Amino acid sequence: MDSKYVIGLDYGSDSARAIVVDAQTGHTLSTSVKHYPRWTEGKYCNPVENQYRQHPLDYIDVLETTVKGALAQCPAGTAEKVVGIAFDTTGSTPALTDATGTPLAMLPEFAENPNAMFILWKDHTSIKEAAEINKLSKEWDIDYTSYEGGIYSSEWFWAKALHVLREDESIRNKAYSIVEYCEWLPALLTGVSTSKDIVRSRCANGHKAMWHPKWGGLPSEEFLTGLDPLLEGFRERLFCETETADKAVGKLTPEWAERLGLTTNVVVAGGAYDCHMGAVGAGVTPNTLVRVIGTSTCDVMVASHEEIGDKLIKGICGQVDGSVIPGMIGLEAGQSAFGDIYAWFKRVLEFPLKNCLAQSTLINEETKAKLIKEASDKILIDLTKEAEKLPLSENSLVATDWMNGRRTPDANQLLKGTITGLTLGSTAPQIFRALVEATAFGTKAIVDRFVSEGVKIDNIIGIGGIALKSSFVMQTMSDVLNMPIRVCNTDQACALGAAMFAATAAGIYPKVENAITAMNSGFAMQYEPNADNHAIYLKLYEKYQKIGEFTEKELFNA
Amino acid sequence: MDSKYVIGLDYGSDSARAIVVDAQTGHTLSTSVKHYPRWTEGKYCNPVENQYRQHPLDYIDVLETTVKGALAQCPAGTAEKVVGIAFDTTGSTPALTDATGTPLAMLPEFAENPNAMFILWKDHTSIKEAAEINKLSKEWDIDYTSYEGGIYSSEWFWAKALHVLREDESIRNKAYSIVEYCEWLPALLTGVSTSKDIVRSRCANGHKAMWHPKWGGLPSEEFLTGLDPLLEGFRERLFCETETADKAVGKLTPEWAERLGLTTNVVVAGGAYDCHMGAVGAGVTPNTLVRVIGTSTCDVMVASHEEIGDKLIKGICGQVDGSVIPGMIGLEAGQSAFGDIYAWFKRVLEFPLKNCLAQSTLINEETKAKLIKEASDKILIDLTKEAEKLPLSENSLVATDWMNGRRTPDANQLLKGTITGLTLGSTAPQIFRALVEATAFGTKAIVDRFVSEGVKIDNIIGIGGIALKSSFVMQTMSDVLNMPIRVCNTDQACALGAAMFAATAAGIYPKVENAITAMNSGFAMQYEPNADNHAIYLKLYEKYQKIGEFTEKELFNA
Repeated sequence: MDSKYVIGLDYGSDSARAIVVDAQTGHTLSTSVKHYPRWTEGKYCNPVENQYRQHPLDYIDVLETTVKGALAQCPAGTAEKVVGIAFDTTGSTPALTDATGTPLAMLPEFAENPNAMFILWKDHTSIKEAAEINKLSKEWDIDYTSYEGGIYSSEWFWAKALHVLREDESIRNKAYSIVEYCEWLPALLTGVSTSKDIVRSRCANGHKAMWHPKWGGLPSEEFLTGLDPLLEGFRERLFCETETADKAVGKLTPEWAERLGLTTNVVVAGGAYDCHMGAVGAGVTPNTLVRVIGTSTCDVMVASHEEIGDKLIKGICGQVDGSVIPGMIGLEAGQSAFGDIYAWFKRVLEFPLKNCLAQSTLINEETKAKLIKEASDKILIDLTKEAEKLPLSENSLVATDWMNGRRTPDANQLLKGTITGLTLGSTAPQIFRALVEATAFGTKAIVDRFVSEGVKIDNIIGIGGIALKSSFVMQTMSDVLNMPIRVCNTDQACALGAAMFAATAAGIYPKVENAITAMNSGFAMQYEPNADNHAIYLKLYEKYQKIGEFTEKELFNA
Repeated sequence: MDSKYVIGLDYGSDSARAIVVDAQTGHTLSTSVKHYPRWTEGKYCNPVENQYRQHPLDYIDVLETTVKGALAQCPAGTAEKVVGIAFDTTGSTPALTDATGTPLAMLPEFAENPNAMFILWKDHTSIKEAAEINKLSKEWDIDYTSYEGGIYSSEWFWAKALHVLREDESIRNKAYSIVEYCEWLPALLTGVSTSKDIVRSRCANGHKAMWHPKWGGLPSEEFLTGLDPLLEGFRERLFCETETADKAVGKLTPEWAERLGLTTNVVVAGGAYDCHMGAVGAGVTPNTLVRVIGTSTCDVMVASHEEIGDKLIKGICGQVDGSVIPGMIGLEAGQSAFGDIYAWFKRVLEFPLKNCLAQSTLINEETKAKLIKEASDKILIDLTKEAEKLPLSENSLVATDWMNGRRTPDANQLLKGTITGLTLGSTAPQIFRALVEATAFGTKAIVDRFVSEGVKIDNIIGIGGIALKSSFVMQTMSDVLNMPIRVCNTDQACALGAAMFAATAAGIYPKVENAITAMNSGFAMQYEPNADNHAIYLKLYEKYQKIGEFTEKELFNA
């Protein structure tokens, strides 16, 4: 049987990667990772204002280099046998476009205007607009946020689009439509030439643009112009229908086939968000929670229509038919900070290195810089080593994991983190251990919410950097949840998921589920919960809940 | 007029100091400080068990060296003009004695037995005994703890004596009486040869041994033997009366006059606890709170009988007629940890230096040790520098100061510390600032308690290491309290207080108040509160109180 290959393209916050995958076996032949060049230089961003913008040319640059880079590592003749490609990207990461569907920053007059670029998911410049959307939704006869967890975020589609329209007259005068990152790349590669023809992502729009069939697609024109007359006409110029990512959106144009070194027979699948394709790459099935565990977590599940029906799952990030696997309801949740909390504690501990030691004149500057870097790089490693040795006790420190607010359950950006139980004997490893436990307790709060809302969870699959690298964190999570956790045997689960969509869109499999069965990576390891530890953690979790309730009610409220 | 001199001897936890003072002007001619030699070697202690014992020979060794050391720095002929000496010591620091009043460790067969030595104030081996005393007191028809704040501590006289009696048969068989550190040194120097003749300290016994005239002195024999038959007979062999420290207990014996290079005309005053003599050294008057601010704080006030009468001040460490100034009621309170909290945070931050950097092979061991020490020594300095620059905000971090439990108001050793309001942007200086504010909030809780119990406080006097060294801490305290704080112009306020008692006992002044007027050091500086800051701190203090109430009720209870 002739081999067929697909390319999975995973576009993250800082870099993109392409993997070439055997469409029959799921075997990854090669991987190529590139950082966005303008982004890496810090261009178009203003971290103090939480403004994070990405130039569309950054995406195009890394597209060519990663695809060619990955193909170059494969046996000769591989490129000709590539039958499909698919993209997953960050989101909600929208850009304003002209009538051709081209992001405005691609036009010469907008080439250096951050408001004409993609507004990265973590951009928080539209907090005001999000608040207005929430207010109007609660007053309206239809709550358009109801399938998105009931709280609209400043990280999402409409808040961002409205913000730049208000902010920038030149954008206001030129903007015709809006496109999500994961929609634009497939449109670009298949030669879409009007914004109306862009295939719209079920995943992106169902989760972040308040799209739902119940109200005929996007929110009504009256709602949108009620928010701001500046939104007049956008609904009509946007779309009514969305598609799942298993559907082909077209084939590579001759120009793009040549630029990527592929043939014009290559099918381009629909786009979706990274965590959602990651869940597919991890082999998601009903009753399994797939966690992408990195700086934050994105938690994805699928459930049958029978299990969920039209029931609203309270306090999660959204529930969208077909956002993960067509025909099933995709559910999204997540922790606003996970690895970021460990990184924060590391930064706190760096003070004596980067402030005190940095002023020393005992050694030369070069050695000093090396020493500081060496010690700094060891902080989390040494903390882990020491924290693992500590005996587990129900009387130890307890922390909450809300240093970046809380995404789920029940989004609340005002929340902040707490560490309690401190004594004069408390050590840095003890505090670190409490922080690791706090992130596991945050996980338990999400799992418990799914379960109390009627979505059963039997087991967890972990993907992402921390899942593969920190056995201490993963074992703690397993003990806290009293559930086994499997970790995928790939460090590119999102790209592998994209490859599965590419294979399905190219017709190799009738359904995404068949692609999962054939192409999954298997598991690198499985963590088994320790029942004794779990019993102690339940007592600490009770304290976590009490602290949470107290701080939310008494300290961090509007 | 011929000059007359007195020697103030201040015996702390780690070291003792002698100052030679002009009895007319209060001018300090010289100071000599020595560390206890056996203690410095770590002998007789077991920090893991919180066992802290001091050998009486340590006290004798430093007595000779400090007195001679201080005199050696004075003009020739000074020694002959010394008319009085007085001791202040830590406490409650008792030792079991034989019938001559000699601490058992001075006998050859007990020379190496920690149970025969002085049991330092911070020794916590008798937690069980303290709990028994508290239980029995509440059941008894007289609550003997009522003038000691209502809660007996494991740091105090009876708990400690009972503990070693139970622990050690050899002590049980030999022990005849008990002596406090501040009583033993005057007795030793004046040649007391039976335990009954030791002049007993009003300060020590009123605050820590449940001595009160209301019930005829020490608790009844029935109460003591009800605690444990091992205490049988001690009450009878101890004492009924106590004396204030302005009274002479005798004159130097010829032997001690020779050993110290003084004359036999030197009057030895009664002993008292360091903070109480410190309050006198600082110039305490009614409505002034004197704070000895170091690793922990000891807060002392005096009030007239008219102001207090027989009213019990709730939740402080005790109220004793004459414990500070004869004829007035001395009131004691304090925070279990103050500078210790900053030192704790420093230890946490040392992790990257003492763990990560310590493993480096980039530089030689000697340079590495120097670098680590240099950086470590700068941590608190640099934290202060950065914390001072931070704008004050009611939305910042909030911490509680209970890392070593709470002494006052309302002693509770089970409490632990909390830091809340943490975000991914929280820095080490921000956390340090919150800790400094927490220690100031702990101060406010004490001040507010005195006030709500009817003891007016107009102003604060600070003495001790932190008062003189950290303007950041002191200004924060002034702003939080909205009160001016004066800092004494001496770093030896306790020893100066002892000198004032020596001068009074030697007859130079009729009353301690006259000695204060003549001999006080004046003030080095005065902090004035900033009203704007105070308004913000009131909001943060509300949060501190809420956190306190929540953690005490929900997390750290028996």
